[in-house]
Order: sequence, then structure tokens, then C-alpha cells
Amino acid sequence: MTGATAPGAKAPGTAGLTLIFTGNGKGKTTSALGLAFRALGHGFPVAIIQFIKGSWKYGELEAAKSFAGLLDFHVMGKGFTWKSDNLDEDIKTAQDAWKFAKETILAGHHKLVILDELTYLITYNMVEESEILAVIARKPQGMHLVITGRNASAGLIAHADLVTEMQEIKHPYKKGIKAQKGIEF
Amino acid sequence: MTGATAPGAKAPGTAGLTLIFTGNGKGKTTSALGLAFRALGHGFPVAIIQFIKGSWKYGELEAAKSFAGLLDFHVMGKGFTWKSDNLDEDIKTAQDAWKFAKETILAGHHKLVILDELTYLITYNMVEESEILAVIARKPQGMHLVITGRNASAGLIAHADLVTEMQEIKHPYKKGIKAQKGIEF
Repeated sequence: MTGATAPGAKAPGTAGLTLIFTGNGKGKTTSALGLAFRALGHGFPVAIIQFIKGSWKYGELEAAKSFAGLLDFHVMGKGFTWKSDNLDEDIKTAQDAWKFAKETILAGHHKLVILDELTYLITYNMVEESEILAVIARKPQGMHLVITGRNASAGLIAHADLVTEMQEIKHPYKKGIKAQKGIEF
Repeated sequence: MTGATAPGAKAPGTAGLTLIFTGNGKGKTTSALGLAFRALGHGFPVAIIQFIKGSWKYGELEAAKSFAGLLDFHVMGKGFTWKSDNLDEDIKTAQDAWKFAKETILAGHHKLVILDELTYLITYNMVEESEILAVIARKPQGMHLVITGRNASAGLIAHADLVTEMQEIKHPYKKGIKAQKGIEF
């Protein structure tokens, strides 16, 4: 099952990478955003699928408009905050979101697919890790995947090519400084 | 000397933040790039000053062209690789680069100034840490600074509002996979 992402099975430079940005520090989604713009600058089609509403903000949405036609941006589960009182409904929303992501990956249209905050689907037992790993293993040749979110599971890490843990050393909220326009949103 | 960046001296939400992305993992410059696009999306003027040639790549340079007029991009020290045989020349190049950065910050034209790989100037004793900290403390009201690079010095960390350490957990180069277009450049 892990064959498709094992180093030996990959033609270096062609298979596409799976990258994970995890940890409790700032920079996970922002790094993914940076990669999106890097790829768009090459003229590559990019899909961003956001599993938790609100982690992408006004600034990048405006910037993204410069790349209409190349960038597909999807916010999954309207108002999906993981705080519903209805667990069955939450699971259904998460699974529908994952199904859309799976179809996007396997369709193979994009050079880069960003699964923003995907890790939570596994953490909260909304979607089976094995189901997600199977799709990662089947991703089309040449496609890069970027997965962000805290507490990436051991299976995700094992299947990734690159994993960076963003560790919070210092955060301004702890000093009582409010979120800043252009930085936090 | 540290008064201007001490929490008590700041009017929350107006003073602007100093952010540091450090550590040995991928995502430092990419996060800064993401913040640049976020700010550009707001229509804020942004300056990127690159202290080591090559850390910003073709993809983002192309993407940046969409924001001509708002984004000032400066590559300091042509061919400045930190590997010259002439130490005096290296120091001169680094100090000239820093002087330009200082003038850009104090001019106050930009809402966000990114000092990419600045940490090396301190690490290699090219520019005094105290000189850099003094400029950070004097940055104009409302300007955000982002500093990237490995081994951020203790003084830089003490003066920053937000510090994230990007820790490498896994890197594809170690598996013999080549740099990937649209991801690494």
C-alpha cells in the first residue's frame, strides 16, 4: 500500500511530492500559500481545499484573484467549525469534504493540491487515516500535495516526502496584541 | 533600547509586528512569501530584501509581477554567496545590504518589509546584532517586519513579537529526490 510513495518506487523529479506542515506554530497555512503562489508563478494549475473555514483570509483571497483561471479555491463545509452539537452531521460534512478532495486529486488536473487543515479529519476520527493514505498513494504522476494542520498523524508523516514542524516559540496573542491586518488576515 | 518593542509600549493593533521564521526546516522563506501575498492582497506596499541570492525563485518572481507597483523586490549583493575568499569584501557587501535595508525600513513607505535570510548577517558577525536591534526598535508605526533564516540570535528572538521555529522532520533530498519545479523553485 505504501509502494507508490516509497522512495524506491519514485522516479525522482517526476512523481511529485507530498509535503506536510504541522506543529503548533504560525506558518503552516502561510507556507502552503507561498507554495501556491510559487506554482502559480510557473503557470501551474493549483487547487486549494480548505477543510476548516476561515484559515485563509481576505488578503490571500484578493491576491488569488490575480490568478483566476489557474487557481481553484474551495472552502468545504459552510460554517464547518467542528463545534456542531450533531456529531453525525459533522462526520457527514467532513466525509463529503474529503470525497471532494479525493476526486480533485484523482482527476489530476492540478499540479499542486493543498489540503489545508486536513490533519483534523484524522485527529477527530472523521475520516479513516487508511482511506486518506490510499488516495495519497494513488495521486497522479507529477502532482504535488501539501497537507497542513496540527498533530499530523504518524501514518501521514510516514507517507510524506517532506515534513516540517512549525513550533511556536513566541506568539503576540499571548502578549495581548490583537490580530493584525495584512499579517493575520 | 528595547522599549519600542516591549509589549507595554505598544498600542495593540497599530504598532506593527516583528515576526521571525527560523529553524532548519522548510517553510521559512515560503511563509514570508505567503505573508507578502496576503499583504499585497490588501493593497499594502511590500518590500522584500533578500540577503542571500537564490532563496527566492522563479515561481514567486513571476507571481510577483502581478503586483508591480506594490511590491519592491531587492536582491542584495550580486553573487553574494558567503563563500568569497575575501572576508573584507564579504563584510562590506553584507554591511551595504544592511544599510539599504535600514533605509528602507526607516523610510516607512512599506506596510510589510521582509528581511529574508537576515539572521546570517549576525551569525557570521557581518553586522552587529545591536545595530539591527536598534533599527527594529525604531521601525515606523504600523510597519510589520518579517525576518527569516536559521539560528536567529537570542537578541532577535527577544525583540520579536512572533517567532516560529521550522523544524525539519523529513526532507526529500535525503531520499535522493531532486528539487521540484513549482515546489522548490
